[in-house]
Amino acid sequence: MTRLDDLPIRDDLRGKEPYGEPMDPVLVPLNVNENPFPVPAAVVRDMLTELESVLPTLNRYPDREFLELREHLADYLGHGLVRDQLWAANGSNEVLQQLFLAFAGPGRRVLGFPPSYSMHPELARGSGADWVEAPRGQDYELTEQLVVDAITEHKPDVVVICTPNNPTGTATSNDVILAAHDAFDGMVIVDEAYVEFAEPGTPSALDLLPGRPRVVVSRTMSKAFAFAGARLGYFAADATVVDAVRLVRLPYHLSAVTQVVAKVALRHAPNMLDEVAALRTERDRIASRASELGYRVAPSEANFVLIHGFAAPRQAFEFFLARDILVRDIGIPTALRVSAGTPEQTDAFLDALEDYTKSAAPVPPSEREDTK
Amino acid sequence: MTRLDDLPIRDDLRGKEPYGEPMDPVLVPLNVNENPFPVPAAVVRDMLTELESVLPTLNRYPDREFLELREHLADYLGHGLVRDQLWAANGSNEVLQQLFLAFAGPGRRVLGFPPSYSMHPELARGSGADWVEAPRGQDYELTEQLVVDAITEHKPDVVVICTPNNPTGTATSNDVILAAHDAFDGMVIVDEAYVEFAEPGTPSALDLLPGRPRVVVSRTMSKAFAFAGARLGYFAADATVVDAVRLVRLPYHLSAVTQVVAKVALRHAPNMLDEVAALRTERDRIASRASELGYRVAPSEANFVLIHGFAAPRQAFEFFLARDILVRDIGIPTALRVSAGTPEQTDAFLDALEDYTKSAAPVPPSEREDTK
Repeated sequence: MTRLDDLPIRDDLRGKEPYGEPMDPVLVPLNVNENPFPVPAAVVRDMLTELESVLPTLNRYPDREFLELREHLADYLGHGLVRDQLWAANGSNEVLQQLFLAFAGPGRRVLGFPPSYSMHPELARGSGADWVEAPRGQDYELTEQLVVDAITEHKPDVVVICTPNNPTGTATSNDVILAAHDAFDGMVIVDEAYVEFAEPGTPSALDLLPGRPRVVVSRTMSKAFAFAGARLGYFAADATVVDAVRLVRLPYHLSAVTQVVAKVALRHAPNMLDEVAALRTERDRIASRASELGYRVAPSEANFVLIHGFAAPRQAFEFFLARDILVRDIGIPTALRVSAGTPEQTDAFLDALEDYTKSAAPVPPSEREDTK
Repeated sequence: MTRLDDLPIRDDLRGKEPYGEPMDPVLVPLNVNENPFPVPAAVVRDMLTELESVLPTLNRYPDREFLELREHLADYLGHGLVRDQLWAANGSNEVLQQLFLAFAGPGRRVLGFPPSYSMHPELARGSGADWVEAPRGQDYELTEQLVVDAITEHKPDVVVICTPNNPTGTATSNDVILAAHDAFDGMVIVDEAYVEFAEPGTPSALDLLPGRPRVVVSRTMSKAFAFAGARLGYFAADATVVDAVRLVRLPYHLSAVTQVVAKVALRHAPNMLDEVAALRTERDRIASRASELGYRVAPSEANFVLIHGFAAPRQAFEFFLARDILVRDIGIPTALRVSAGTPEQTDAFLDALEDYTKSAAPVPPSEREDTK
């Protein structure tokens, strides 16, 4: 029987565990920030129609430049963006990987502000770069002062700012992103995976792109767009950034099938995004009920909330799981992350939370632990 | 106007050009070794039926472990393989990238035998590893002596052997692969992208897997399987190798749509592979006619042939392109690579080759240049 340690794997991988939440099917999955509503029937019909003509041609390689899809992405984002400024890959993980391979890599340094998306350090290190961190402030907020100080201290080549931030839901304003940009000569990657859940009218970092080729805004169709299973992440930036990524992307990385289903979904964007307002309502319902029960909830502009006050988060996680509810134990002391579900799923979670609270009262947060 | 050089890209990427053949549509595309026959109608129908139930669920993340697909891949390969020994990604480029990220990376060395698949060095270097090379022998063949000497000289951590080899078509026997395996403690990656085109009964390196956890056999559905547009590469190895790759793969890298169309294609494997024998015939037809015309053709077990004897390959490339025929100028002196097409496409190429030969007689190969 061979064990992993018997193989000549990279030394820095020894003893590591793969990223991944349990995937057992549960009735109420609130652990990976999916949109709980299925793809609308009209959209499915259109996809099937287009697939009927694409599937027979799968013997040929796909359009390596996926020009039509990039056109659709530019149209969706607006902001005067054109096709040459858009790029996509199999999920925003691959988008970020490509950006790190182009702009980070061995001998370079990537700066992030934890707690944030746990794949950022993995992907940065995977490119061969060093990962450095600076803490967030009160309620997980980032300020101009804080990011500029961190850049001055760490001298990074790339800075990653996730807004609204996963797993805290914290929004970061364009003023702060601009301050980061102006504080050094490297790339600023703004991960806006959850931006469609922010209040309508909230400025996106897309506003910063004109005249700033060192800003990249990464997006995904996995969250608000209800399209996690199709794996489509993308970014918008100066066309030169697309040229740079083209040097490191795997040729033909985006299948003809992915290209066509994503195009159809984008054509139906208003329909695909139909439930976003409803999900904001569910998120706010979770936040306010949890607060009433004595928990502390960081202000969230995403489709999830980070709830503080569990004396033993793992025990609470198991309590919910026994009720067929899956939430996320993110490793932050006293906290669990809960995605907004359908109204019924949200009810199920809030009922369970109430019952749990009867057996284990919320604990006051320790400031030191919270921002760890 | 921003130029690529104005951006803080990695220094080793400066001045590089992205991988990629021209993608202008032509009547006779013989440049990327695709299967020229469309996906059969019965297979398309089955895919549409399955997609009808999968598309509505794309709001959820796909099975991160794609267990059903791996089961299908194991069944297809036979050789007593089981699901846990199979892994897949978006094209064999991503499969190889994952293997290099797990077993190569910074401070390690990957050995290859050019001319071979041009992405091998790109992917190895992309992982941060050094790429080293040893030349092939007469008619591009690899011998036990040659690979053992190269391993002794270069002390690699990973050896890559492509068989049948792209772009030469050269087969490498299991004896040679075994000699490589026994000559060091590192991983041997056998790239069998074109193996279905070899003579029926030719042993695959899959025979070497039992008891040898340092051997990995990489395959693809892009070539014989007529499925390049779906992007499905995979490998078979000891289950421990799959564990290793799981440490570096991007979570949810394989979309639910990719999983389902690949499963259906595998269920229809005999149908999908229906034209393989016909393509062998076309390959042999190109080889023998080119030889008659005075060109030298390396013996090929793949779905393409490397034709030597063009005094000016780029000029010949343009001559064919003017006739709407796309072949591959691989950068090997006096040589062009031509994929086997449909009988009509092969006719078109051979007619054009005959005409070209009237204006520019084949040149005798310079041994030194040929093996460069």
